[in-house]
Amino acid sequence: MKLNDATPEFIDSLRKALFDKALRPVEPRHLEEPRGAWTGHAAAVIAPETTEQVATVLRMANEARVGVIPYGGGTGLVGGQVMPDGAVPIVLSLERMTKIRDVFPNENIMIAEAGAILQDLHTAAEAADRLFPLAIAAKGSARIGGNLATNAGGVNVLRYGNTRELCLGLEVVLPDGRILNNLSRLRKDNTGYDLKDLFIGSEGTLGVITAAALKLSPRPAGEGTALMIVNSPSGALELLGLARAHMGEGVSAFELIHRTGLEFLAEKLPEIRLPFQEFPEWFVLIDVGLARGLNPAEALETLFADAFESGLVSDGVIAQSETQRTAFWEVREQIPEANRLVGAISSHDISVPLGLVPEFIARAGEKLASMGDFRINCFGHLGDGNLHYNVFPAKGRTRKEYADQKLTISDTVHDLVADLGGSFSAEHGVGRLKVAELERYGDPVKLQLMRMLKASFDPNGIMNPGAVLRRND
Amino acid sequence: MKLNDATPEFIDSLRKALFDKALRPVEPRHLEEPRGAWTGHAAAVIAPETTEQVATVLRMANEARVGVIPYGGGTGLVGGQVMPDGAVPIVLSLERMTKIRDVFPNENIMIAEAGAILQDLHTAAEAADRLFPLAIAAKGSARIGGNLATNAGGVNVLRYGNTRELCLGLEVVLPDGRILNNLSRLRKDNTGYDLKDLFIGSEGTLGVITAAALKLSPRPAGEGTALMIVNSPSGALELLGLARAHMGEGVSAFELIHRTGLEFLAEKLPEIRLPFQEFPEWFVLIDVGLARGLNPAEALETLFADAFESGLVSDGVIAQSETQRTAFWEVREQIPEANRLVGAISSHDISVPLGLVPEFIARAGEKLASMGDFRINCFGHLGDGNLHYNVFPAKGRTRKEYADQKLTISDTVHDLVADLGGSFSAEHGVGRLKVAELERYGDPVKLQLMRMLKASFDPNGIMNPGAVLRRND
Repeated sequence: MKLNDATPEFIDSLRKALFDKALRPVEPRHLEEPRGAWTGHAAAVIAPETTEQVATVLRMANEARVGVIPYGGGTGLVGGQVMPDGAVPIVLSLERMTKIRDVFPNENIMIAEAGAILQDLHTAAEAADRLFPLAIAAKGSARIGGNLATNAGGVNVLRYGNTRELCLGLEVVLPDGRILNNLSRLRKDNTGYDLKDLFIGSEGTLGVITAAALKLSPRPAGEGTALMIVNSPSGALELLGLARAHMGEGVSAFELIHRTGLEFLAEKLPEIRLPFQEFPEWFVLIDVGLARGLNPAEALETLFADAFESGLVSDGVIAQSETQRTAFWEVREQIPEANRLVGAISSHDISVPLGLVPEFIARAGEKLASMGDFRINCFGHLGDGNLHYNVFPAKGRTRKEYADQKLTISDTVHDLVADLGGSFSAEHGVGRLKVAELERYGDPVKLQLMRMLKASFDPNGIMNPGAVLRRND
Repeated sequence: MKLNDATPEFIDSLRKALFDKALRPVEPRHLEEPRGAWTGHAAAVIAPETTEQVATVLRMANEARVGVIPYGGGTGLVGGQVMPDGAVPIVLSLERMTKIRDVFPNENIMIAEAGAILQDLHTAAEAADRLFPLAIAAKGSARIGGNLATNAGGVNVLRYGNTRELCLGLEVVLPDGRILNNLSRLRKDNTGYDLKDLFIGSEGTLGVITAAALKLSPRPAGEGTALMIVNSPSGALELLGLARAHMGEGVSAFELIHRTGLEFLAEKLPEIRLPFQEFPEWFVLIDVGLARGLNPAEALETLFADAFESGLVSDGVIAQSETQRTAFWEVREQIPEANRLVGAISSHDISVPLGLVPEFIARAGEKLASMGDFRINCFGHLGDGNLHYNVFPAKGRTRKEYADQKLTISDTVHDLVADLGGSFSAEHGVGRLKVAELERYGDPVKLQLMRMLKASFDPNGIMNPGAVLRRND
């Protein structure tokens, strides 16, 4: 289905239909993505204030066969928010739909509009003595609609699940302007097909999420954080098992960090205080949130003693204060920034079955060593089998020198991941960056069904054209 | 789309294609449902041994336009497993696909075929020192494929979620015989649309689930159970909040029970030992599973003391042994049997937003009181906002005397539920019993999308015809 450019006449008809300040000038931020990989084009930015206005925009775009790029906080890392070519689309920004419509503390539920900023949801939950556990680096600018559209992950997935698991219901505008009212506050409702999960993670290609019913959690009575030096990734896995045997769901985060991460921090962000004098090859950050009657620092001490006795850990440090907890987390959270300053040749957001993480790390390292001289920074959410596996130039060399190897590196890593039954995109999504990977690695029947669903929901192909699935034109 | 009868020639062609013992005689159990509401018809029972055989059956049925009724343990309560009229279908029983293909204790994952009996999954998980938390009364005969197809609930949803939340990936045979390979062991995988959740809860109308990757949990270090007398449903809700503030995710089950339940047990199952001399109007069963370092009985004592001080509970008893825990649970679990022996006029499996449970109970009671003389047994999974709200004849009267009121009672309850934003089927599904309710109470756009999905996945309408959505013929 061929799309039309969004003409000045079309934009004018939108202006007349919306009767308000919904039409915005196109600003550079609407056409960029954080890594600067490409630049988009658009005839206008439309920022509706109500669900009905979103419906009007989609209905008119559908009739005119004009592409629509849904836009949240613009923090996505796979180009899902930027259309670089094809017929000129409009950008539909949710930035004016930021209301938290309701908080129900005794139900552990919050109803928020898609444009609400993640950090504001945290604040609102905290004000009700509750926790909204979705925690990602971009929380200060990411909007919940985008988090839902991409099924965002983050550091608390081990305990609380991905964004999908934090959503009870959605309000969605379909490409033809119909509104699906599914803002359920129900924990159990078996009355027909689960539509919500089809929209979550579909990256704006099936409709526009305008509001969501979100799950809150009780705040843990006490929290604690430790860093423990492990002898290997497989030792880290055993430690995770031990931690869960001790504390069950109380383990909120379990992050694996490699020496390279500390080296990059020392080199590029010397103001960050590092926890070890001598850098260990592998260590983990364990974060726990426990019920009343348990002292988190003591529970971590007990875990450490057990693990030390079993030879799983050789040293460690347990935060004795909130300041120290924050400092430990700072080490983990600043690694991506250090990476950015060093400059990766190729970055990978992969997952493999948990038990195969050590094999992946070993085999990927061997394969890359046979291809050239690299530094590898492998770190991430071990508890979820999700690693950020980033390949950098050898010390003293620049990534330009490796330009012709970039694709081979990426293919090598992703082939190995596929071989192990893993995913080439654990938490970032497909966007426009990984469309070819999806075609290459996706189950063929899954791809057929996805194309069928796209054609059913969006027969004119106006929704985020070229994201997730290749455009037909 | 009109379906054809499964003719002797068609059955014969299946027999030739399958080369094995897949063809079974039609037994009465395949045409019945537990409450005896109706009887099905079928030309044959096919029990394949492999996914490929399931694919062959569906491909041939699709070509011949013969209806297929997927059959698990036959324990569903809404007639999803029994087709009473229309063109004669075949029953596709998963009873020979019972393998547990793999258990990965360190990944907390189990891969099981659809015909595996729920109880056997519990046993296999326990053998690996893990927990498969789906717990329903029919666990001895229900099969996991049916649990997935109906998104079964049960008593542990508060802590572990519905069956949907316990599934990481599926293998599904589509109506045309294609096989979707999605048996993922990944906790994070954002590579395209979420198809799994479309099949879960679709009650066999979009395809046949043949295997699943299931989430296991660490076993809690210690478990405990208490019964506490509350002054009202709203007091019970406050107690739930307090319990979660004390123990977070440690609260595994929180069941509300009314005096009527105890009265029915005393009347019909006098061998069950009842916990209170004088029956309280309302009490709750609280089950907890806690991490190391916490004594569950002590934690429940502390909770009780706090709740007593706040006036939320007036009395209670905390299990001091496993035997006593089992005895407490026996009270809860035998209530449905006592109900069956008393004989309900109308039974309802409803949910409402948690905070509206007290309002629902009050208003439903008032409405029914104005309609006649009934006994109401209201009990269930308060933590999920899910109540079994069952209406019985007044003492000394029979349900025959109320036959003409049955429909009005059901409509009254379901209208009120809808008014409160609730669900007319919290955990049992739609099946054939509640198709009219779905049409009456479902969001119109949701229904349109469901019909569109059904037509896309199953254009000939062979899959479980008349379940969830009305047949077209």
